[in-house]
Amino acid sequence: MKKAVVLLSGGLDSATTLAIARNKQFQCYALSVDYGQRHESELVAARNVARSLGACSQHVIKVDLAAFGGSALTNHSIDIPITGQETDIPVTYVPARNTIMLSLALAWAETLGSHDIFIGVNAVDYSGYPDCRPEYIKAFENMANLATKAATKGHKTAIHTPLIMLPKEAIIRQGIALGLDYSITISCYQADEAGSACGVCDSCRIRRTGFNKAGLMDPTRYRQS
Amino acid sequence: MKKAVVLLSGGLDSATTLAIARNKQFQCYALSVDYGQRHESELVAARNVARSLGACSQHVIKVDLAAFGGSALTNHSIDIPITGQETDIPVTYVPARNTIMLSLALAWAETLGSHDIFIGVNAVDYSGYPDCRPEYIKAFENMANLATKAATKGHKTAIHTPLIMLPKEAIIRQGIALGLDYSITISCYQADEAGSACGVCDSCRIRRTGFNKAGLMDPTRYRQS
Repeated sequence: MKKAVVLLSGGLDSATTLAIARNKQFQCYALSVDYGQRHESELVAARNVARSLGACSQHVIKVDLAAFGGSALTNHSIDIPITGQETDIPVTYVPARNTIMLSLALAWAETLGSHDIFIGVNAVDYSGYPDCRPEYIKAFENMANLATKAATKGHKTAIHTPLIMLPKEAIIRQGIALGLDYSITISCYQADEAGSACGVCDSCRIRRTGFNKAGLMDPTRYRQS
Repeated sequence: MKKAVVLLSGGLDSATTLAIARNKQFQCYALSVDYGQRHESELVAARNVARSLGACSQHVIKVDLAAFGGSALTNHSIDIPITGQETDIPVTYVPARNTIMLSLALAWAETLGSHDIFIGVNAVDYSGYPDCRPEYIKAFENMANLATKAATKGHKTAIHTPLIMLPKEAIIRQGIALGLDYSITISCYQADEAGSACGVCDSCRIRRTGFNKAGLMDPTRYRQS
């Protein structure tokens, strides 16, 4: 079996991505990043998802992005938007987050002898984050293939983004078809310790709408309906 | 004054790079990464260099790359080469190190409103690390300019590599001309706690030869001559 590093936040998209990678017969090494996010229950979800979906290993790496600030996800004094009315990239954007996470995945992949990295970015039902777009992923892959010792030996690394052009309802249907239990995933930006979701942040709104459009029961425990 | 993030390891090259950035009238934010390197005295040197060269701020961020392994710099059971006879990229290579460091610099730069990052990579007197080459830096810069919210607003980030094509002796001459005191820098891969250098690792060899060729006194305290 080929090895793959799968970035796993514990949310809906990354869990589906792990299910897809497993279904493609990859031996999956799940990488989660504790970057100082306020929704720490996400990391609990990541552990449950990794176990439930048969990742052969999970590693949680700590990088204190809160020290840099600049995001409502790492700075508790910035409120999470709950009106769903932003027109610009919202304050939940974390500077260079996917670049940092993919870089860490690249490091682990190289030490594992893996040339495949999976990330659950989506450029359809998303918050407009620049580091979720296909052109960004392509540029990262290009850079990665100049960055490593493995690359100098002719081993190309592929950045797999199986969800990138799918609407949320199609992602959910695919996960369900692969037997994924979404009740163990957490998407909410301000989930509480028990894992219940606010129901009103952008991430909750996008998730809810996805289940509605898919015509499927949403197993999420929301605090507000 | 324009702000710049300067990656600062505490070695000869990054110290010279900081001196150059200061000389170009940048307000310098020094970023050092505690990645589990065995030569921790490097971080002490980084603090001294940041202070000595007038960085307006220094941040040390911790990322445990030792957890991934794969390098003699993070795994104490792998010996540091001391014969100077490698033909391949040596075991001191740390997978994706510059990619991770530049990603962190990109994050900090964005939160500071800075569009300039300095890194002291060198592709002449070096150990053949792939992430020191001009084509790699260009690819990183290209990726960075698709990765951030700042980029979507038209703010391009430049990755400055003032040393990339200079032989070591030219780097040293430039630093001396800018008043840099190299006695506070540490290049050695296995410097001891007091900051004295082994004298025989690749990094010591390259440094020593540079001072010799420059015809300048090497202020390094070597344990072996």
